[in-house]
Amino acid sequence: MNMNKKIPVGLLGATGTVGQKFIVLLQNHPWFEIKELVASTRSAGHKYADVCSWKQNTPIPDYIAGMTVIAAGKPLESPILLSGIESSAVGMLERDYAKQGHVIISNTSNHRMDSDVPIIIPEVNPDHFKLAKRQDYSGAIVTNSNCVVMPMAMALAPLHKHFGIQWVQLTSMQSISGAGYPGVSAFDIMGNVIPYIDKEEPKVETEGQKILGTLRDNYIEPADFVVSAQCNRVPVIDGHTATMSMKFRGSPPTVNEVKSVMREWRGMPQEKNLPSAPPTPLIVMEEDNRPQPLWDLLRAGGMSTCVGRVRECSIGDIKMVVMGHNTIRGAAGASILNAEAYIALGYLDGFQPV
Amino acid sequence: MNMNKKIPVGLLGATGTVGQKFIVLLQNHPWFEIKELVASTRSAGHKYADVCSWKQNTPIPDYIAGMTVIAAGKPLESPILLSGIESSAVGMLERDYAKQGHVIISNTSNHRMDSDVPIIIPEVNPDHFKLAKRQDYSGAIVTNSNCVVMPMAMALAPLHKHFGIQWVQLTSMQSISGAGYPGVSAFDIMGNVIPYIDKEEPKVETEGQKILGTLRDNYIEPADFVVSAQCNRVPVIDGHTATMSMKFRGSPPTVNEVKSVMREWRGMPQEKNLPSAPPTPLIVMEEDNRPQPLWDLLRAGGMSTCVGRVRECSIGDIKMVVMGHNTIRGAAGASILNAEAYIALGYLDGFQPV
Amino acid sequence: MNMNKKIPVGLLGATGTVGQKFIVLLQNHPWFEIKELVASTRSAGHKYADVCSWKQNTPIPDYIAGMTVIAAGKPLESPILLSGIESSAVGMLERDYAKQGHVIISNTSNHRMDSDVPIIIPEVNPDHFKLAKRQDYSGAIVTNSNCVVMPMAMALAPLHKHFGIQWVQLTSMQSISGAGYPGVSAFDIMGNVIPYIDKEEPKVETEGQKILGTLRDNYIEPADFVVSAQCNRVPVIDGHTATMSMKFRGSPPTVNEVKSVMREWRGMPQEKNLPSAPPTPLIVMEEDNRPQPLWDLLRAGGMSTCVGRVRECSIGDIKMVVMGHNTIRGAAGASILNAEAYIALGYLDGFQPV
Amino acid sequence: MNMNKKIPVGLLGATGTVGQKFIVLLQNHPWFEIKELVASTRSAGHKYADVCSWKQNTPIPDYIAGMTVIAAGKPLESPILLSGIESSAVGMLERDYAKQGHVIISNTSNHRMDSDVPIIIPEVNPDHFKLAKRQDYSGAIVTNSNCVVMPMAMALAPLHKHFGIQWVQLTSMQSISGAGYPGVSAFDIMGNVIPYIDKEEPKVETEGQKILGTLRDNYIEPADFVVSAQCNRVPVIDGHTATMSMKFRGSPPTVNEVKSVMREWRGMPQEKNLPSAPPTPLIVMEEDNRPQPLWDLLRAGGMSTCVGRVRECSIGDIKMVVMGHNTIRGAAGASILNAEAYIALGYLDGFQPV
Repeated sequence: MNMNKKIPVGLLGATGTVGQKFIVLLQNHPWFEIKELVASTRSAGHKYADVCSWKQNTPIPDYIAGMTVIAAGKPLESPILLSGIESSAVGMLERDYAKQGHVIISNTSNHRMDSDVPIIIPEVNPDHFKLAKRQDYSGAIVTNSNCVVMPMAMALAPLHKHFGIQWVQLTSMQSISGAGYPGVSAFDIMGNVIPYIDKEEPKVETEGQKILGTLRDNYIEPADFVVSAQCNRVPVIDGHTATMSMKFRGSPPTVNEVKSVMREWRGMPQEKNLPSAPPTPLIVMEEDNRPQPLWDLLRAGGMSTCVGRVRECSIGDIKMVVMGHNTIRGAAGASILNAEAYIALGYLDGFQPV
Repeated sequence: MNMNKKIPVGLLGATGTVGQKFIVLLQNHPWFEIKELVASTRSAGHKYADVCSWKQNTPIPDYIAGMTVIAAGKPLESPILLSGIESSAVGMLERDYAKQGHVIISNTSNHRMDSDVPIIIPEVNPDHFKLAKRQDYSGAIVTNSNCVVMPMAMALAPLHKHFGIQWVQLTSMQSISGAGYPGVSAFDIMGNVIPYIDKEEPKVETEGQKILGTLRDNYIEPADFVVSAQCNRVPVIDGHTATMSMKFRGSPPTVNEVKSVMREWRGMPQEKNLPSAPPTPLIVMEEDNRPQPLWDLLRAGGMSTCVGRVRECSIGDIKMVVMGHNTIRGAAGASILNAEAYIALGYLDGFQPV
Repeated sequence: MNMNKKIPVGLLGATGTVGQKFIVLLQNHPWFEIKELVASTRSAGHKYADVCSWKQNTPIPDYIAGMTVIAAGKPLESPILLSGIESSAVGMLERDYAKQGHVIISNTSNHRMDSDVPIIIPEVNPDHFKLAKRQDYSGAIVTNSNCVVMPMAMALAPLHKHFGIQWVQLTSMQSISGAGYPGVSAFDIMGNVIPYIDKEEPKVETEGQKILGTLRDNYIEPADFVVSAQCNRVPVIDGHTATMSMKFRGSPPTVNEVKSVMREWRGMPQEKNLPSAPPTPLIVMEEDNRPQPLWDLLRAGGMSTCVGRVRECSIGDIKMVVMGHNTIRGAAGASILNAEAYIALGYLDGFQPV
Repeated sequence: MNMNKKIPVGLLGATGTVGQKFIVLLQNHPWFEIKELVASTRSAGHKYADVCSWKQNTPIPDYIAGMTVIAAGKPLESPILLSGIESSAVGMLERDYAKQGHVIISNTSNHRMDSDVPIIIPEVNPDHFKLAKRQDYSGAIVTNSNCVVMPMAMALAPLHKHFGIQWVQLTSMQSISGAGYPGVSAFDIMGNVIPYIDKEEPKVETEGQKILGTLRDNYIEPADFVVSAQCNRVPVIDGHTATMSMKFRGSPPTVNEVKSVMREWRGMPQEKNLPSAPPTPLIVMEEDNRPQPLWDLLRAGGMSTCVGRVRECSIGDIKMVVMGHNTIRGAAGASILNAEAYIALGYLDGFQPV
């Protein structure tokens, strides 16, 4: 990428936890520059620092702190809008901005399962960007997956391609940051496990098949495997861990074949050396007791999925543990990587990659 | 039970966490009286209160605090010995005391899978006590299951009986108290998930089949189902939670049938009204987000297994969440209930039930 | 106390965390019977179990679960109303009900510092009940202290009486349950210390002097010592711990004198053997590292204050650690004990103590 | 500093938690290069990665992982040895290596209070390095302070200089990483406060006076103020928080004067722009509820002390909260900064600063 100047981006839901993570991750980004902070009318008109309950372990960057928040719905100038707040209102908003010509790179679930909206993991299905051409917007809406689907789909992608997945049993142990702020009451989660997360299991059971599906005549034919999910909240700040048992379609690969295929897996972000691409999308660990959120969360800046305990299963063929950073690779970082891929593949008019 | 005086019991591993829980649970027990505290030679000869790192939220009972600890291996007088410390040394010790005529009601895994040692859950397989007759001891060794197996096997027992289990996928989220004291370093588990517990998964994958097996000609024919376990440590103090997906042998029961069968399940401890028997061995909850260790741990004094989220599974037939108190129903309380059942069934010579 | 039938009580703020604790603590109470559950109009008209987000480790008692919640402000029949929700609206409510003849035993801070409202710790200042006679209500409002003031004032009471306190430096480490539900976000407190609690330090710096003050001509002359408080939130579920350094007025007592005076201290609740009175109001511990919330919280059912590490201070004279159960002795249990004392002292017309 | 090649350093206690932090912080250090890893004979002869229980959130650097651990006591070549393991054995070891000509930059408490060993905070007392000249070693031993003393002494330094401190009441809330690994059992600290840390309070009550003392005729005349410390362990992973109330000698400064003096404070590391120097040694915060370990720990890479809630005290003159990173500024980072200062001041023969 060789650009004379950075691409202006706007943030929808700039004061939320995903919005904050966008700000942290875009500091010193080589391609993007935050130009517009959009939030609810309650915050609009105020300086960002005055209305944001900042929950990051680095201070608000100075150039952001003083920016005036823009009311959602107002006209914007940035060609790319990163969207991070979940709500039906935001769903409408994304559509309106797309109609006005903006490219919405969304972390929200509002439109993920719409038939003309792709869920992109650039290592997996960059061809799905084309699906957005069916949208009748002058702009576009592109999404990334749910934060548990991310490590699951990344781990499954090379395995499905090589060996064909039949089914996946998944139990997640999800961190509290996935619930936003204030999110989970300390009273509910300290020293506790909550064996339920509202609306989470249906996402985990469907998004992966769309991502690993095949684009045919501008429709996605979902991958033909079944996911059964059991989602739990645990007292962890960042990082979603999941156990998976999987059955393959044909004669199953060995443990070593599974590990090899995962370790060697690279995709378009690595080939094009995108700024936010992890060198190794899947880090396969050999230690008995890894990955762990506490120690492995920030591998590759939180953009890799960590995999461990790959071993045979007496019911499925293979079981394993996956762990990923839910607010980086599973949210803000995923959107940023999608924006990078969108541009690198030449979809943003007027911004040509090298 | 109508006894003129209480039955003396000794505790093997009296200073450990399970030993301490025995002491707490046996305060005011109607049948048993702690007469002998046995621990390593390092503690022997000292007053219990001086050598025990007491980690219970009630003080050491006065009559225990002043008792002198006896060295493991010394001759004992109590007919029943409750055993709570895991180690190969203790394995030998249990055998030696059994040879000397004591009945060892053990919480340890040392002899669980020996072909002549039963793993008893009195609601499930009280007939297995007879297996101990094959032991060539003048006493006997009787065990209870691993602390994850306990809620799993309790939940499966009525279902296996009615519908026939084919396989169970289980992912556990286990509390730190299962690791004893000092056990898990705070540095390892605070805000973290450890996706591995040493030697745990093999136990979870085998003990249940023995418990639900059939006694034939004084041998156990294990139940014919497969368990695949993925065990995790989470930052919870007490209470093991597990997700389960299960496949039945024939045409699967409905969700309501599964709940009914679990709710109505009673066993010998309930029928004979044993002192430590929970009125309802399986508490089936309807709330979306239950059971939770924080709120449900002490139902029936920690002796019930809590079950929730019973629903259909797209891979197995039914999935659900189980949760039990790992140091009560999964350890000390289990042994005490086994001792009560042993006596109530007339196996302890000289101590006749009503 | 010899009563033919139990005294009906109503709960103001019945669905809140203090309200819930009232319900738990009043199960099987020998004197009181919950007859009326009062909450906001939003909950009114519904069954308690349907509108309460119950956060206790025992289930809602059956007779409570089915009771219909009454809207705050409606006429009530119970002579005694226990009040547990903080808010200016409740402040008005308490006054209105007092005007209608009810005795409000309040845990809220609304009226604590009113000149005609006593803050009662029955071991310390039961004579202050008389202050309520100055109120121009046909009923009365009586309060208990803030949850940090409780262990502080209990520890100081015998010391001030014997030796005269000049000042107290206090740093608290307060549990999350003090903030109610949902209260503190897990995101804010897990693995963290928050060195601030809104409106807390002014209470800690003033309430103790009122409690330990002298009733003269129906006015309280506050005790003449200074408190400087620094209040912190820590990731503990229940139990407030505080370090204190104190300076005495005259020649300071020795460490042993301080411990003796604290250990021997008894008051009116112990003398009259009130149902909720702890046998030993101050439990003075000798271990280096006690008290700790995890192990000592439930001493005397949460009604004692635990004291430890009594030692000389190089700035004040004596320093020590105090710890108390903030939702029992520091809230619901305190109100219940106040109600018991109120009746035992003959202040409730028509209900005579023995 | 303009050096042709980096200065070789050895690590004493390389496998411990402070040793690990040395390794993390010295990655890409412009002046130093780790050449020797020293640990107990048990680890000696093995590759570092094979014997170290690595507990950092970045992987072991490759060049370290393969280095062979050297047995403590063996001859070493590095002129500078960073020492990080507490024990009397290490105390001897430091002395032996100093006799052999090495400069020991130690984080341990073994020799801190020796009359010829300086405790250095380079912003505060770089002149104290000269004290080491009294040592009869061809090398030298130089120490940094205890991890609670660090934020306390940093905060007090400019205040003592400007206004004269008379006394300080301090209550600490210390993280578990201060106890090393395995350190604190999860069972002891999860959801708990331990109001005691072995041997900690005497250090907090004496080290600050030495650091802020005056070097006269090669002896330290300790600063003439009194510290009374009450040290607590709380469930925080990294970061020690402390409340302080302080009395000044003369007429006390205003809150604004205190803040100004702290904010403007700089020292030799800032003037010489040492590689590990924080730009602002004291970050004074205005928010009511800051500093907090969770959000403020990594300010300036963990090398600044954060100060908040500066306000008047009704007993002392001023109270405030301080918070610092106990394993960076309070341990490994402190030693590294000391090593940098030692060299920058020209004390290391043959290594001249610019």
